Amino acid sequence: MKQPVPKVAVPRLTVYLQCLEDLPHGVTRVSSEELAARAGVNSAKVRKDLSYLGSYGVRGVGYDAAHLRFQIRRELGLTREWPLVIVGVGNLGRALANYGGFAQRNFRVAGVFDDDPNKVGTRVGEHRVEPLAALAAAVVERGARIGVITTPAEAAQRVADLLAGAGVASILNFAPTVVRVPAHVQVRRVDFSTELQVLAFHLHQASMGPAGGDPSPDLPS
Amino acid sequence: MKQPVPKVAVPRLTVYLQCLEDLPHGVTRVSSEELAARAGVNSAKVRKDLSYLGSYGVRGVGYDAAHLRFQIRRELGLTREWPLVIVGVGNLGRALANYGGFAQRNFRVAGVFDDDPNKVGTRVGEHRVEPLAALAAAVVERGARIGVITTPAEAAQRVADLLAGAGVASILNFAPTVVRVPAHVQVRRVDFSTELQVLAFHLHQASMGPAGGDPSPDLPS
Repeated sequence: MKQPVPKVAVPRLTVYLQCLEDLPHGVTRVSSEELAARAGVNSAKVRKDLSYLGSYGVRGVGYDAAHLRFQIRRELGLTREWPLVIVGVGNLGRALANYGGFAQRNFRVAGVFDDDPNKVGTRVGEHRVEPLAALAAAVVERGARIGVITTPAEAAQRVADLLAGAGVASILNFAPTVVRVPAHVQVRRVDFSTELQVLAFHLHQASMGPAGGDPSPDLPS
Repeated sequence: MKQPVPKVAVPRLTVYLQCLEDLPHGVTRVSSEELAARAGVNSAKVRKDLSYLGSYGVRGVGYDAAHLRFQIRRELGLTREWPLVIVGVGNLGRALANYGGFAQRNFRVAGVFDDDPNKVGTRVGEHRVEPLAALAAAVVERGARIGVITTPAEAAQRVADLLAGAGVASILNFAPTVVRVPAHVQVRRVDFSTELQVLAFHLHQASMGPAGGDPSPDLPS
């Protein structure tokens, strides 16, 4: 009986998937030790995480890389397409609208929105910026389940309300603030300074002597 | 005796700090329940996390918000300045070079680098883009401990090698690939599609019925 994947293992699965895709061309098998070294976690954890997928390596042979990629993609729900909308056209919104990594994972940018009349109608990559007033209808028509917020902090809550009201079930929030949403909506926040703060903590600990330091790579745990 | 802060609690401390900074003007006290609701974790975890800082709320009164902010900032090492360099001037590099949230946390952009001769010498916010050949000397002269990689995937490993060789102790990697570094260098990877994959997993589970769904907000755990 396959166990459900624990929530805390999900970010690691995404890292394994990336590592599998980064394997040198022609490599078809990978051991848990090699995957562990590439992902920066220990190999026992790799084997445990992969066992949730019903995948067990063969001693001395390892895992079939292509099958493992498929299993992870299927578990994560990446075998179907996920349309998303991006709200907020600054440098970051532009960067995301053009981000090649999305398509590779079946995330399709289905619309780019801003409330600045000077931006509405301009091109961002292959998209034309649409007004915020068109957001709700676009979410419904295009079946977008994911909304990406790349506005300044002040505008983020209003956009989150609009997205949740339009039926978006998941929000990726890049604005440097916490947004409140109804309980059925998932939010993940990407705050560049959060990541830097975690790095600073380790630098700070290391500068206070070896007892505080931790030389192991810091990965989703 | 104050316990050391466990590594897994560090991302949550950064969220509490953000929540404390988002408190309405004039609010000077906050309960663990209120902080928990704002941060999207349970209040027992908030109290436990804050106890690592030696901070205990008073029943019916809560925590002193200003003191708690100071304690978190001190613990994370945010009471000193951290110069950083950004390598790779695309939309994302531009967005980060202009990111107001960095200065607010004492992260100072000390240089922006690219190896494209058409970009070298151009302005990005208040910075002038410098050539990659000047990176190592700049890291040493400006005391940068943190390097931010915003290049395409193909260039990321070379830049990571340059940064590590120049003495950078922490790397924030935005390129959609895993970089290998010496054991004493910390890497955190920000991959936009990783965050989306975690959201997709939850959407996917939810679409397969209530047993697979998990309506609780997904925060650093």
